[in-house]
Amino acid sequence: MPFSPRRAIVGAMILLAALFAALLPAASPPVPLSPGEIAAAAPATAWRAVAPQNLMLLETARGTMAIELAPDFAPDHVAAIRALVAAGRFDGGAITRVQDNYVVQWAASPDAATRPAGGVPAGTRAGVAHPAILAAEYERPVKGLAITPLGSTDPYARSGFWNGWPVATDSTTATAWLAHCYGSIGVGRDNPPDTGDGTELYAVIGHGPRHLDRNITLVGRVIDGIEAYSSLPRGTGPMGFYKTPQEHTVISRVRFAGAADPRFEVLDTASPAFAAYLKARANRTGFFVRAAGATDLCNVQVPVRRAR
Amino acid sequence: MPFSPRRAIVGAMILLAALFAALLPAASPPVPLSPGEIAAAAPATAWRAVAPQNLMLLETARGTMAIELAPDFAPDHVAAIRALVAAGRFDGGAITRVQDNYVVQWAASPDAATRPAGGVPAGTRAGVAHPAILAAEYERPVKGLAITPLGSTDPYARSGFWNGWPVATDSTTATAWLAHCYGSIGVGRDNPPDTGDGTELYAVIGHGPRHLDRNITLVGRVIDGIEAYSSLPRGTGPMGFYKTPQEHTVISRVRFAGAADPRFEVLDTASPAFAAYLKARANRTGFFVRAAGATDLCNVQVPVRRAR
Repeated sequence: MPFSPRRAIVGAMILLAALFAALLPAASPPVPLSPGEIAAAAPATAWRAVAPQNLMLLETARGTMAIELAPDFAPDHVAAIRALVAAGRFDGGAITRVQDNYVVQWAASPDAATRPAGGVPAGTRAGVAHPAILAAEYERPVKGLAITPLGSTDPYARSGFWNGWPVATDSTTATAWLAHCYGSIGVGRDNPPDTGDGTELYAVIGHGPRHLDRNITLVGRVIDGIEAYSSLPRGTGPMGFYKTPQEHTVISRVRFAGAADPRFEVLDTASPAFAAYLKARANRTGFFVRAAGATDLCNVQVPVRRAR
Repeated sequence: MPFSPRRAIVGAMILLAALFAALLPAASPPVPLSPGEIAAAAPATAWRAVAPQNLMLLETARGTMAIELAPDFAPDHVAAIRALVAAGRFDGGAITRVQDNYVVQWAASPDAATRPAGGVPAGTRAGVAHPAILAAEYERPVKGLAITPLGSTDPYARSGFWNGWPVATDSTTATAWLAHCYGSIGVGRDNPPDTGDGTELYAVIGHGPRHLDRNITLVGRVIDGIEAYSSLPRGTGPMGFYKTPQEHTVISRVRFAGAADPRFEVLDTASPAFAAYLKARANRTGFFVRAAGATDLCNVQVPVRRAR
């Protein structure tokens, strides 16, 4: 092979580069942080406090389930639920339905004024006084919501996050709505035109039932303690209703957080920390040999932490 | 306004049409069948029998969980699991991990030959004899699989159904894989390069963790009895592992279905009945005031029925 000046120059450059590389300290490739590590390292400014007036606590012998209500999406229903709670209407109520891969549902207590003379077991539906049915709050104007995009396609709608909530939007109607994901709290209702009155609420305990979006008023989500309720025995009646009141879990009390209760914070979905978290969720490392490169709305649970 | 012959003709036609309509009997609009009604009405030819050699039964004091294995996707792991079952390796094993909105995981029993002299509680990992690590079966050639498309976008991949299984595909690699949905059964493993040996298995009990797709060997799905296991108390250790062996649920036996056991059938995902089911899932009626017009892979659980 004849001598080639160009080859010689290239060869010398490779040799020099190799020499320089050998002189540099060995650097490991940076290990990307996991989503959990990103949330744990997020600065104080990246967290939004859950307002005590939106922090509803459901108490049974199984423990306390903490729910953040979302008046920005369902102001009338949240007001109605606040009134029911203030009147003690859930105290003595019960969990009446647990359907696998779907929902845990609870009901207000029979009202003293309408309780059958012979008495009914706590949590049965007989004798429950119903407030007025409210107009549906299945969606709201998207105006005013600066939504952090999911960054992945969503089969149901455009979607993302606003103020810690998983939100979907429709540009043709210029509306936005809370999405049905694990932990979402909805207002039970009968068939249309019924839109519910707040005396029956449910929490999602399965794969995000997005087909319910815009068909039910969502009022919030569980931010702590769902595991004591998602692990309840499933009801064996139709749709997971318990067949007997004896199977019900009686609600000792539902109340709003007071001064002595734990405080919670939700990762601000407009923060750089959440952007990094979202990206890391879609591009897992460590245990993972292949990053999905995408995620879905309900597979991104917005981080929550105890503030005290 | 001047007389218009064209208007007169159109007007007469409308009048005639109205007269004809008035003479016809009043017809209610047809009520579309719900997904459940479509499955219930599906003819016998639309159901595929689950082969007894693929029907693995996990037995504990909580009940029997029936799992259909998928040798078409993970032949080596299914063979390894069959060998473990035949050797009684899961008998005396235990459920060691229940992580909320994620998985229930169980482990083979410590092996008599390697059991510490002092003895270990059933289900602890000490003394478990490990067979050879198998090569990953995270995906397989798509060739030979006539996949029924989901008919909705999927943020992770193209997806659909084959022979009753939720399947995703990648045209660039010409591969297909089982998707992680509620009830999917996977082979637990440690960090890469570990790919698992079949002595640890898990069932998904939460929102479909699709980020695990192609990162774990899936070997089947639960087709009956998951509710006794999805309702287990959650473990309070890291990743939902129980902190003490006393919290474990001991496995009395894992075996394959025999002549006296129930038989199951899965709706044939290539059948017209499944096509109607899929369409109805995306376009709910009745309770629903607004059809989603789409669905997602894990929100379509392929129907299963007891055959006897």
